[in-house]
Amino acid sequence: MGIVLGANQYGKAETRVVRIYRDTPRHEVRDLNVSTTLRGDFSAAHVDGDQSAVLPTDTQKNTAFAYAEEVGVASPEDYALALSGRLLEASPAATGARVAVDEYAWDRIEVDGSGHDHAFVRRGQEVRTAVVGRTREAVAVESGFRDLVVLKSTGSQFTGFLRDEYTTLADADDRILATSLDAAWRFRPGAAPDDWDASYLDVRGLVTSTFATTYSRALQETLYAMGRTVLEAHDGVAEISFSAPNKHHVLVDLAPFGLENPGEVFHAADRPYGLIEATVTRDDG
Amino acid sequence: MGIVLGANQYGKAETRVVRIYRDTPRHEVRDLNVSTTLRGDFSAAHVDGDQSAVLPTDTQKNTAFAYAEEVGVASPEDYALALSGRLLEASPAATGARVAVDEYAWDRIEVDGSGHDHAFVRRGQEVRTAVVGRTREAVAVESGFRDLVVLKSTGSQFTGFLRDEYTTLADADDRILATSLDAAWRFRPGAAPDDWDASYLDVRGLVTSTFATTYSRALQETLYAMGRTVLEAHDGVAEISFSAPNKHHVLVDLAPFGLENPGEVFHAADRPYGLIEATVTRDDG
Amino acid sequence: MGIVLGANQYGKAETRVVRIYRDTPRHEVRDLNVSTTLRGDFSAAHVDGDQSAVLPTDTQKNTAFAYAEEVGVASPEDYALALSGRLLEASPAATGARVAVDEYAWDRIEVDGSGHDHAFVRRGQEVRTAVVGRTREAVAVESGFRDLVVLKSTGSQFTGFLRDEYTTLADADDRILATSLDAAWRFRPGAAPDDWDASYLDVRGLVTSTFATTYSRALQETLYAMGRTVLEAHDGVAEISFSAPNKHHVLVDLAPFGLENPGEVFHAADRPYGLIEATVTRDDG
Amino acid sequence: MGIVLGANQYGKAETRVVRIYRDTPRHEVRDLNVSTTLRGDFSAAHVDGDQSAVLPTDTQKNTAFAYAEEVGVASPEDYALALSGRLLEASPAATGARVAVDEYAWDRIEVDGSGHDHAFVRRGQEVRTAVVGRTREAVAVESGFRDLVVLKSTGSQFTGFLRDEYTTLADADDRILATSLDAAWRFRPGAAPDDWDASYLDVRGLVTSTFATTYSRALQETLYAMGRTVLEAHDGVAEISFSAPNKHHVLVDLAPFGLENPGEVFHAADRPYGLIEATVTRDDG
Repeated sequence: MGIVLGANQYGKAETRVVRIYRDTPRHEVRDLNVSTTLRGDFSAAHVDGDQSAVLPTDTQKNTAFAYAEEVGVASPEDYALALSGRLLEASPAATGARVAVDEYAWDRIEVDGSGHDHAFVRRGQEVRTAVVGRTREAVAVESGFRDLVVLKSTGSQFTGFLRDEYTTLADADDRILATSLDAAWRFRPGAAPDDWDASYLDVRGLVTSTFATTYSRALQETLYAMGRTVLEAHDGVAEISFSAPNKHHVLVDLAPFGLENPGEVFHAADRPYGLIEATVTRDDG
Repeated sequence: MGIVLGANQYGKAETRVVRIYRDTPRHEVRDLNVSTTLRGDFSAAHVDGDQSAVLPTDTQKNTAFAYAEEVGVASPEDYALALSGRLLEASPAATGARVAVDEYAWDRIEVDGSGHDHAFVRRGQEVRTAVVGRTREAVAVESGFRDLVVLKSTGSQFTGFLRDEYTTLADADDRILATSLDAAWRFRPGAAPDDWDASYLDVRGLVTSTFATTYSRALQETLYAMGRTVLEAHDGVAEISFSAPNKHHVLVDLAPFGLENPGEVFHAADRPYGLIEATVTRDDG
Repeated sequence: MGIVLGANQYGKAETRVVRIYRDTPRHEVRDLNVSTTLRGDFSAAHVDGDQSAVLPTDTQKNTAFAYAEEVGVASPEDYALALSGRLLEASPAATGARVAVDEYAWDRIEVDGSGHDHAFVRRGQEVRTAVVGRTREAVAVESGFRDLVVLKSTGSQFTGFLRDEYTTLADADDRILATSLDAAWRFRPGAAPDDWDASYLDVRGLVTSTFATTYSRALQETLYAMGRTVLEAHDGVAEISFSAPNKHHVLVDLAPFGLENPGEVFHAADRPYGLIEATVTRDDG
Repeated sequence: MGIVLGANQYGKAETRVVRIYRDTPRHEVRDLNVSTTLRGDFSAAHVDGDQSAVLPTDTQKNTAFAYAEEVGVASPEDYALALSGRLLEASPAATGARVAVDEYAWDRIEVDGSGHDHAFVRRGQEVRTAVVGRTREAVAVESGFRDLVVLKSTGSQFTGFLRDEYTTLADADDRILATSLDAAWRFRPGAAPDDWDASYLDVRGLVTSTFATTYSRALQETLYAMGRTVLEAHDGVAEISFSAPNKHHVLVDLAPFGLENPGEVFHAADRPYGLIEATVTRDDG
């Protein structure tokens, strides 16, 4: 039974590409963190030390910068589509290329009630994400975000759960529900949106408004409701996945100090945290 | 020449206090990270292991939670004023108490065009800060923020600087200026604002709008301009200090690829970074 | 085409369990970060808000602490095996349980040339990892580590690579090779070691000594050599995977200052970085 | 009452300088993070935008790299002494220069029982620190470390403390004492050690062995004992300061599960934490 190379891939991670659009006095900023990966037949590099099929990660970085100028950044998805195509083309040994882009949003600084032309403040909420996976035959796009921190100060319970001899948790009829939400949604082949930015904002809005308006009997139920809402509204979305740490807010016992605490003072705990992950998809039946 | 105890202090750091106001259906969130410190005559604890004068840091934590209920959190400054007073009162050996509060802002989630009553998204820009230093005789309040990330895509240069034999930097006539700004401003005794939240928002607005509208011949000049604007508008502010890492955005050389780069594609570098610090104050003369 | 729940799982992440063995004056410390996950038929919780099949994550945390006492922590693998069994038993709706354990190593503090009985310093190199995946039918164990930072100051080149029009990288005949290595190895069914701690130390030693003694014509070649060495020495290991960021050390151009730099002064760059991932496995043929 | 520039300084932070000594086949690594700061009369840069007195932070970075070659890195202190002298010399407007160096230690990888010539593993315990403050008249050196994580599994109590109406903490007769220690010690003028590396290792050893062997009635007492030991052994050290977060290890209540917990299972808490800071100095009397 011999020893062989198994799955392998390589690339350049976290190239920080900032693209300024300055064709008019009203500038636009696209602020990206780009990671590229190639996979394919690279066994000579591993087994024999022969690099002749390896497009250097330094070249991948150069291409990431050059493509920000050559094709621009209409959206993270458009950019990743172009860049992944180029990398596959430039690397004959590769069978697949993956380009993952994080985008940091910037808002215009308010001056006298309107947004400034070329001064910006980083928005600092979620990081938008786009991942393009491309082979010689097909391409798949996943849009998403991570680290969107949301909280409901009421409208959430957790009761009626399974109990065993290690269970000490009491039912909670009214609790804080808070999470730092990650989400990613995949489009059906041929169903990509015309306007990736508009599509992103719409999905994000559906997720947050569903979070706000759905009574939660568990974080699981909330995730499912958010996913269902997105799939109902966006025909092109094949499925959506969530990863949601349950950021526990523990009601502080103030009774030793002669105080009541009617859902007003909480300790925001760091660790451990619940971690709930769910995909909502379409039934092929 | 004997060996003695010098300066010393102790306290509880980073108590994560979340206070919900729920007296009406339209809730409010104040989300704080509270650090308390006592200093004074605690040499018995150090030299003899005698803890009888030491108010435990656990008690300081309890008090931080209890005061969020008892006195509430009208603003981080009001809360820190009350908490520092209590800690000094409870600790006869202390000569001074310091309460430092970070606040994380939450926005209402938009639902059908208006903000929801009890669902929130963490704003995620700057962290607001308030520090109260209190002795038996006096109290000082410092308001501020940290990690406000701002960027100008034009309107900034850096030219005419001192050169020596290790200088390779070229003059830059038009560059990106970006920083993650920390600021803290101290009020003159007796000149505290009535409304700390309104005061905070106004200072923050002056800082960002000055950043936007002032042509910058160096980050130093920008800091000074921001400080002067604040002091001119707020008589009660005695001085303001800034700490501003110069987050370098390096124009990428695309010439090897046959491309021009007219201020459009930049590499956002991590380290090293310039670090500019300046205080703007009033002349007592 | 309906909307349905897809893949889902939930659990408690990052429970920080510290187990002290103090049966003799010479104490032992096992310092763990434990994450547990259950998957199975939890659709009622998602779709109907019915939690009756859900063992709370709080209970999973309690069990993690209780098992540190009841069964102890002979090794992270032994502990994870026991805990995963318990969680599956306690959760009838679950089809699988996963327990992932990080361990932080502590060394004894040296006093007069020998290790102290009950005073320790955190070793601070790699984090040891163990992951047990368990279903009703089978159990799989993966040992590993992450964040082992290693560097070779010579004995590494990168030459003869593929070039395209975006390539500017020059051949490097003698460079620094540095990485923060992650590794994970899976045992063949029935081939688990008797002594997990000894097995871990031996694999780790093979990896680092191979890194040291193998001339590197690319990080890919180094990874493959390390994997082959482990598989040759450990019959029970079915395969081993590596993830290795290429922490670039850039030779600084000192010529503008009239200085040579014969491989002596480097800039340790943060981002971007190469990221090389490879699995070495056994050929079933 | 006019508005004026107050205290100000600027420099380049976190230049990651790696110096390899390769004069013999047995290489040495000095891995530094260098931050330089100048202060003095830079008001023209702030008030008038005139940069003619400003030595660019980019030049400071270049000098940091060049000096790693020109003068080398015999120790972080020696390097910082040289670099601070150069920066002050190159900047006529400066009245003071400060160079702060962090050093990351590397151990040789063990191969067949001995350390390899040119392969290293990052030690990963404390970060060593050196700070040189230099004016036209004087120079001060401070050696130190940060993030040295130590733990005692017994030999620590906390009892007899002050109680008020917010106190709920019980006396602890036998607890875990753990901290992530920062320390910095300053040498008397003219009393600098000949061998900074040897001096560092000796002070570090005194600190950890005192931590190990001193019964602790509070973290305060432990800090004082460590400081006294250092000052007694090192005549040249004028004073030493500690900052020590009390990393709470909370005994887990296993009684609900029918288990005793005789000091064996702890929860390692993140936040809040006690923070104890003390300086031990010499009595001038």
